[in-house]
Amino acid sequence: MTASIIDGKVIAERVREQVRQAVARMQEDYGYTPGLATVLVGENPASTTYVRSKRKTCEELGIRSVGSELPADATQQQVEHLVAALNADPAVNGILVQLPLPKHLDEEAVLNSISLEKDVDGFHPVNIGRLAMKGRDPLFIPCTPYGCIVLLEESGIPIRGAEAVIVGRSNIVGLPVAMLLQKRDATVTICHSRTRDLAEHVRRADIVIAAIGQTEMITGDMIKPGAAVIDVGINQKPDPTAKRGYRLVGDVDFESVKEVAGAITPVPGGVGPMTIAMLMKNTLRAAEIALAKRDR
Amino acid sequence: MTASIIDGKVIAERVREQVRQAVARMQEDYGYTPGLATVLVGENPASTTYVRSKRKTCEELGIRSVGSELPADATQQQVEHLVAALNADPAVNGILVQLPLPKHLDEEAVLNSISLEKDVDGFHPVNIGRLAMKGRDPLFIPCTPYGCIVLLEESGIPIRGAEAVIVGRSNIVGLPVAMLLQKRDATVTICHSRTRDLAEHVRRADIVIAAIGQTEMITGDMIKPGAAVIDVGINQKPDPTAKRGYRLVGDVDFESVKEVAGAITPVPGGVGPMTIAMLMKNTLRAAEIALAKRDR
Repeated sequence: MTASIIDGKVIAERVREQVRQAVARMQEDYGYTPGLATVLVGENPASTTYVRSKRKTCEELGIRSVGSELPADATQQQVEHLVAALNADPAVNGILVQLPLPKHLDEEAVLNSISLEKDVDGFHPVNIGRLAMKGRDPLFIPCTPYGCIVLLEESGIPIRGAEAVIVGRSNIVGLPVAMLLQKRDATVTICHSRTRDLAEHVRRADIVIAAIGQTEMITGDMIKPGAAVIDVGINQKPDPTAKRGYRLVGDVDFESVKEVAGAITPVPGGVGPMTIAMLMKNTLRAAEIALAKRDR
Repeated sequence: MTASIIDGKVIAERVREQVRQAVARMQEDYGYTPGLATVLVGENPASTTYVRSKRKTCEELGIRSVGSELPADATQQQVEHLVAALNADPAVNGILVQLPLPKHLDEEAVLNSISLEKDVDGFHPVNIGRLAMKGRDPLFIPCTPYGCIVLLEESGIPIRGAEAVIVGRSNIVGLPVAMLLQKRDATVTICHSRTRDLAEHVRRADIVIAAIGQTEMITGDMIKPGAAVIDVGINQKPDPTAKRGYRLVGDVDFESVKEVAGAITPVPGGVGPMTIAMLMKNTLRAAEIALAKRDR
């Protein structure tokens, strides 16, 4: 058996197209254009690339993009002052502070300073608290975990009652995706570096989310036949035949796992494209909230 | 083999004694007395009993107890107004709003209105968000989950690397205790009513937390030999020989489980006494925070 490929590029384009149409309608019906502010502190190359493609996607979808850059030695006060100005700006619906921030800054305090209704990244502690709790919903779901759920749903993979094993417990992916699956009635186990028998856990799973940042560590012998495998990892693997001397691979050994799994995301082209698509969807939602407030 | 009994009464008394001594020292050194405000809305008999014993324990430990009662038909505004007054009162270090609130009230909004530094129940969404996230700590840990952790620690049961299975996913016990165990490096699985093979999961566990509210549903055949079993349930079981016609039992079938487990909490006398003890500890902590602020 060979797994069906969950095509993140196709599903992300579907999400973007929905957003594009909704933005056009909002413009037509209300003369209102959603706006996303991106804040980049310092010149981390990966962060710069991410922010650039977020801004580009905004333009493609008709969302106004407001870019702010601060130097790597910006003070806590400067960053929070900028966030406060963006909080107050009615043309800004969503605020994305690109992480990681330089080490000397207090990340939690910065995230806390973002207005809840503009927290399109979903990392405000109140949002995470709501995400964790039964009967409560966050205003915004963090983008990458949200993308994982949409990939499963769009592929018709049942979540309710499924055994889900999350490998990795980061604040950005592992923990929130665990909470999202739990809320959708999966039975969730969170594995991490202290887990005794990782393979044994993964072998039970109907749904595997790999988000541990270890090159191809999840192998075919660890997978239950027919399982759905979502690979969040992006790792550089040395490859002399590649132009840059490496190629991008996931936390999952694609070749061996695809022979056993029922469905699998490739790297690249799986979870990757979803993150920005969900950010656009969250920005649209923030604009809808602002618009509803304006017209009240 | 018969399990050793984890005596919640003894461990809770140890916690209370620490608090009593610290309160006396605070009084002596700073002339400062911690204060706990309890808010009771309506006349739910169980809530009335709980609040009464919280107030009584305060007195025993030298903590000032400030009681407020509102009628069952109190408005949202009345409750929030009372909380605001307690937030502003420097003699009040901790505010406990007894749950559940009458159905017409917005519980989340009430909990949100409690000042973070007085949230001794630990149910403010920001506290829960911090509890869920790596690298962050809540100001206060919710009392019953905190009590479960102390019972394990005081009994010398290793948590790091252990397989922990939580049965039940309430906001008050199941979810926060899962997060606490996860942060202490257990591999955690959260089971619930949609879990397919509950017995299979429980059988893997080195630590079982039963918090599902089902009379004696965890039985000896589901337990791994030597496991530690913490029973959070309090259920009424019909018993014609008892004065009231019933006796209190847990979610765990004590008789069969104690033959297999390594350690087990009884009901009553296990988790029950811990909840109030941890509330007292949280109130002491709130007073320490207030005192540090005053002296700054």
